Amino acid sequence: MRMSRLVAPTLREEPAEAEVPSHKLMLRAGMIRKVAAGIYNLLPLGHLVISKVAQIVREEMVRSGAQEVFMPALQPKELWEESDRWGVYGKELFRIKDRHDREFCLGPTHEEIITPLVSDAINSYKQLPVTLFQIQTKFRDEIRPRFGIMRGREFMMKDAYSFHPSNKSLDKEYKNMFETYCRIFDRMGLKYKAIKADPGAIGGGFSEEFMVLADTGEEELSPGVRGIEVGHIFKLGTKYSEKMKATFLDEKNQEKPFIMGCYGIGIGRTAAAAIEQGFDKDGIVWPIAIAPYKVAIVPVNSLEKEQIKLAEELYAGLQAVEPLLDDRDMRVGAKLKDIDLIGIPLKIIIGPRGLKEGNVEIKVRASGEVIMVPIAEAKKKVEELLK
Amino acid sequence: MRMSRLVAPTLREEPAEAEVPSHKLMLRAGMIRKVAAGIYNLLPLGHLVISKVAQIVREEMVRSGAQEVFMPALQPKELWEESDRWGVYGKELFRIKDRHDREFCLGPTHEEIITPLVSDAINSYKQLPVTLFQIQTKFRDEIRPRFGIMRGREFMMKDAYSFHPSNKSLDKEYKNMFETYCRIFDRMGLKYKAIKADPGAIGGGFSEEFMVLADTGEEELSPGVRGIEVGHIFKLGTKYSEKMKATFLDEKNQEKPFIMGCYGIGIGRTAAAAIEQGFDKDGIVWPIAIAPYKVAIVPVNSLEKEQIKLAEELYAGLQAVEPLLDDRDMRVGAKLKDIDLIGIPLKIIIGPRGLKEGNVEIKVRASGEVIMVPIAEAKKKVEELLK
Repeated sequence: MRMSRLVAPTLREEPAEAEVPSHKLMLRAGMIRKVAAGIYNLLPLGHLVISKVAQIVREEMVRSGAQEVFMPALQPKELWEESDRWGVYGKELFRIKDRHDREFCLGPTHEEIITPLVSDAINSYKQLPVTLFQIQTKFRDEIRPRFGIMRGREFMMKDAYSFHPSNKSLDKEYKNMFETYCRIFDRMGLKYKAIKADPGAIGGGFSEEFMVLADTGEEELSPGVRGIEVGHIFKLGTKYSEKMKATFLDEKNQEKPFIMGCYGIGIGRTAAAAIEQGFDKDGIVWPIAIAPYKVAIVPVNSLEKEQIKLAEELYAGLQAVEPLLDDRDMRVGAKLKDIDLIGIPLKIIIGPRGLKEGNVEIKVRASGEVIMVPIAEAKKKVEELLK
Repeated sequence: MRMSRLVAPTLREEPAEAEVPSHKLMLRAGMIRKVAAGIYNLLPLGHLVISKVAQIVREEMVRSGAQEVFMPALQPKELWEESDRWGVYGKELFRIKDRHDREFCLGPTHEEIITPLVSDAINSYKQLPVTLFQIQTKFRDEIRPRFGIMRGREFMMKDAYSFHPSNKSLDKEYKNMFETYCRIFDRMGLKYKAIKADPGAIGGGFSEEFMVLADTGEEELSPGVRGIEVGHIFKLGTKYSEKMKATFLDEKNQEKPFIMGCYGIGIGRTAAAAIEQGFDKDGIVWPIAIAPYKVAIVPVNSLEKEQIKLAEELYAGLQAVEPLLDDRDMRVGAKLKDIDLIGIPLKIIIGPRGLKEGNVEIKVRASGEVIMVPIAEAKKKVEELLK
């Protein structure tokens, strides 16, 4: 991508509306813009990061054996009455009537949809266990939406639901999901911790939260260690299947309610938590796996033909590692400030002095390390640093 | 994927609720299930096809120079009042109040969101033109939702919006989008036609529709030729930018309203239209590019170890071309019926007679052609047929 074309309206000033670093920095880096309280636009950089988080989650869920589906946001009231949640969910549930005065809610979670779906699709223990997941927009009318996309009213979630003939089968899949979550957060390069948790409105018997560790985290996990909840896994048992009469036939041809688990990851929340774990005074420090671009190519003087030519060559040669070419006609200081704010892991700086000696400068965002390399070796070095 | 694990509840019977072939076949192939009128679950096969359509659209939009964003479904009433559409849009607009009694709609389209977003992000003609797109869920409270995901109340759209300093610049991007749409539908292997159209509620000066040709199409394009609208491109002009006071500074430092275009593709609708264009008495005949799986491997007898062993070997060897292994313990006739119903482009049938001679049978879904090939050449032949 060429920086001159990228819609990334960076801000020099601290936005007054934001309290936590991730919210401030996502606004300042031109990643998000507010539409209403707790409701945000994702601009190109924001969308790129969220897509990368979603793609890692998707790949690891598929690797775990889960199948991807897509369920609607609009959920009929009748299903929520079956599960007894229409009455108890309260004001956090967005409720809406259609043109025929039929009532729906905007799904904050999908147990009421997936339970009858699986009950209809699966009759026999032979088809079990099965785990389905989706990556989809959720709605929750938070009383105090805040922290940008960390606690929004409309947000992207991965939610998964598993169906089992026995508790033993549920335990096995729960463990599989636990391990899958570890792979997901490991791949994103995040430090995290799983802790026992309160199942809350989702219900069920046992649950654990995955917390990304950050000094700015909203919860104190143990003395001095704070975290941000990014995932939550639940052993639901038969809470939904009994109420919704979702059954299968067991080995003895007897009707049994499905034993269920459910497993969530906040996609936008994970991206925001990655910032809370990785930032400094200059801006965001993305883990390589979810950075919007992996390397920025910055010619010091945008009027120097030799610098531009080399920048274009490196840009063409580095296409495989998602380069950002800063082709803007601006002072180099301002260009580098933007690139650091956005948090690109590597910069290749093409300046007159280095060029005279046949070198370019590679600067590592996270460590501040500066490496001078011969032009011919720049590509190899970048690829090596990104490994 | 192993067919024994896949959640694809195929139906032998014609579903009573469905009128058109795509709706019937998506239900029968276990791709979709109804939640409420015009509101559907996408099961794994349905999700796979929709994802492939979306991915082709995404790749070609990015190739065209557009940048991907993601905007919210919940849109504040105030913005729709600015554009004068809150009053005129009528009952098709889903309207909702939050816990503080603030009014929102569920976006059927995003002009009211993107116009202030771009106005905030872009100040100068130097940053123009720019085209932003998203692939996102839309809502429209249709008076008569029907034909499954073809005319739903909640559906996936690609919507794009372009911003220009001049009509000449808009004309150029409009042409670019026209060509991008041709590449998109060409890649999907669809026969289509672009025709002049009525801009309707979106407004603006000039628009064209992309119609997938099908005997079952809802519109008569010219004598005897019927089509299904899958895309619509508009020259909006300044309709939204003037009302919403969205301006930039031109070369003479004068404030001018953005000149806009907008460009939609119905993602689910395109998948359904592909079925209307490709089906026979046995089921769906997918174009290769959007088939959920490209080749099915079917051992005739699921108890014959030699057949199973070969099926597993072929399955492992063909991973790159998205194979479906029919490992179910069922009569071969029933297995083949399901595979044909789902519309997999190629089948490798492993039977006792062929095996004795060292051959397998490759059957082409679209043409019915049967090709006997030596086992060692099966992989190469499949790859060749899928090109």
